[in-house]
Amino acid sequence: MSIYLDNAATSFPKPASVYQAVDDALRHRGGSPGRGSHHMALEAGRLLMACRDTAAGFFGIRDTSRVVFTGNATEALNLALFGLLNPGDRVVTSTMEHNAVLCPLQALQTRGLKVVKVPPGADGRLHPDSVREAVMVDAKATRLVVLTHASNVTGAIQPIEEIGPWCRSLGIPLLVDAAQTAGYIPVDVEDMGIDLLAVPGHKHLMGPPGCGFLYVREGLQLTPLLYGGSGSDSGSPLPPEHMPERLESGTANLPALAGLKAGIDFLEKTGFVNLRRHKKELMAHLADGLSALPGIRRYGPTDISLLAGALSFNLSGLDPAEIAFWLDNEHAICVRAGLHCAPDTHRSLNTFPRGTVRVSPGYFSRHEDIQALIHALETLSNHGK
Amino acid sequence: MSIYLDNAATSFPKPASVYQAVDDALRHRGGSPGRGSHHMALEAGRLLMACRDTAAGFFGIRDTSRVVFTGNATEALNLALFGLLNPGDRVVTSTMEHNAVLCPLQALQTRGLKVVKVPPGADGRLHPDSVREAVMVDAKATRLVVLTHASNVTGAIQPIEEIGPWCRSLGIPLLVDAAQTAGYIPVDVEDMGIDLLAVPGHKHLMGPPGCGFLYVREGLQLTPLLYGGSGSDSGSPLPPEHMPERLESGTANLPALAGLKAGIDFLEKTGFVNLRRHKKELMAHLADGLSALPGIRRYGPTDISLLAGALSFNLSGLDPAEIAFWLDNEHAICVRAGLHCAPDTHRSLNTFPRGTVRVSPGYFSRHEDIQALIHALETLSNHGK
Repeated sequence: MSIYLDNAATSFPKPASVYQAVDDALRHRGGSPGRGSHHMALEAGRLLMACRDTAAGFFGIRDTSRVVFTGNATEALNLALFGLLNPGDRVVTSTMEHNAVLCPLQALQTRGLKVVKVPPGADGRLHPDSVREAVMVDAKATRLVVLTHASNVTGAIQPIEEIGPWCRSLGIPLLVDAAQTAGYIPVDVEDMGIDLLAVPGHKHLMGPPGCGFLYVREGLQLTPLLYGGSGSDSGSPLPPEHMPERLESGTANLPALAGLKAGIDFLEKTGFVNLRRHKKELMAHLADGLSALPGIRRYGPTDISLLAGALSFNLSGLDPAEIAFWLDNEHAICVRAGLHCAPDTHRSLNTFPRGTVRVSPGYFSRHEDIQALIHALETLSNHGK
Repeated sequence: MSIYLDNAATSFPKPASVYQAVDDALRHRGGSPGRGSHHMALEAGRLLMACRDTAAGFFGIRDTSRVVFTGNATEALNLALFGLLNPGDRVVTSTMEHNAVLCPLQALQTRGLKVVKVPPGADGRLHPDSVREAVMVDAKATRLVVLTHASNVTGAIQPIEEIGPWCRSLGIPLLVDAAQTAGYIPVDVEDMGIDLLAVPGHKHLMGPPGCGFLYVREGLQLTPLLYGGSGSDSGSPLPPEHMPERLESGTANLPALAGLKAGIDFLEKTGFVNLRRHKKELMAHLADGLSALPGIRRYGPTDISLLAGALSFNLSGLDPAEIAFWLDNEHAICVRAGLHCAPDTHRSLNTFPRGTVRVSPGYFSRHEDIQALIHALETLSNHGK
């Protein structure tokens, strides 16, 4: 029996209702939404609209049409960055970003984009003042601030709610990568001053792979990433002006989106308070257990309430890849070692290039799973492999 | 009971094995392929590799790593066009293309791309000589020839096998949009001289929505459309050189790809000969039935063997949208009316802007379904609505 503690990569298992929703959509909503006006296309279109409403509602998005569905959060981030930024623009970001932000920025840098990376404090959290200072060096040229809501390596939650309203007061859009927080902590785009929000469907929102979305605040007009059939304005070769059709081209992935809707419905039915309580208890158990191990080095905040669902550690004298391999091989415990697609973060933590061992429990993880991991690591730390 | 004759939009229903494969992948292959090296990630990775092998094998693609999975054929076409073309390049295409080709080309035209559109003959089929002549006006500047393999409006199959080897002899890459032919007629990239092939998973290949791929011939190096985590080279912000990781970023849609594999396996098990025989019989039944109707106007080739799985018609004095609405409302028959995201095609057919009624049976369509459609249209054509 496998013990899966890699939910920061993708959550597993999903709620039974998610499997059911995907299957139902495939078997009973087989028309292509927005293609044709027969009843099967319309039924599919209504389900797609319900998915959009659910996604919008969960993040406090008032105008449902500003939710642009994508294949994953990476596509959402690429759409936001390539859709908004032009040569000569200045962008403020952090050294705690995932490659899904770093790599598009790198590609845009070769086309003349200026990128400023703010380092975090010793606990891996950004100081809002550092971000503000970086912006104020040239606020006029700063076209965008882009920050992850929580590090996918250390789990450190960033103080978006202190940065967003400030950016808004300056009229500088804020793009937030919510890959690790969407479905883990409440995210309200209005309260937090978020103008662009990139969300994966398959992590804490409990949906299947193949879905995610970008929220685009009213007033921001992005250049599309994909051009093609939009199900409307068939007669024009130009992208439609209206949303979400402007930014969504090609056949929608309705089964995955129906699964995403079921995932969010599950979260809402279970209740955020209950979800968070269970996950925080698991994280506290994990952090406490690790702290008792000889030779342990934890990265990121010690305060559990400052952590999303992942944490990183190393054991002195051991390679993180070896630890993960041994846990998998000897105990069928799945954790992820290495750089986690976030090289700058590891440079900030002085863990580049070997990286760390990352543990990320999910809603369906049990305290026995955490206990099994701690026990295994005790053996390793006491006796070597 | 609905009669679904809109398989050119998306095939429905899917084989039972496709539903099963999607569900199995969701429930039992929940790791993220290429993310981490624990056994669940590796098992997911092996399934992803099997999907790639199956897709490659079906199209005569020798190097499996040149299959780049995308969310749909639109994304595959955008990746090919934006990844290959630069300002100042010249592209030869046709007036029979879908918006998934037309719209990216239009966007590239505003950045300095030159686009030459070749019109078809009276039956909607391209003459290879017309394509050759258009290329030869400035072969040196011609960076790409891009053609649909079959019109999504008339179903007319284009003579790719006569054009591809000629393009290859000139060293000009050929991009083929196989949205309507992949899984309907055999496509072999080597025999046909295809350098780039865009394929949807959810049409004749019988897979679920949310998957497709682009084949990129060895020697062609595309600029990525999406940048981010690729599951390899985590330490570098530059896209990897090796394929397919260079062009695939973000979490893979493994459940949909597992469904695509099951769809192709179903086609191979059933046998192309049997599939085509059934579909051609349905198309012949449809064409014969329509030809007996008063006031009918069919578009495209009359020879069934020159048609992929769709055909278009109009009835004199009636609006195509009204016909489709009436068929749906009175007989629960699902066909698609309008422009079908291919405005240039309708301009070529003189059916712009009202369009046509398009009928596209699938493998699971029955002769009774065609008969029901013909009967309904007889009523309409004899007595009005």
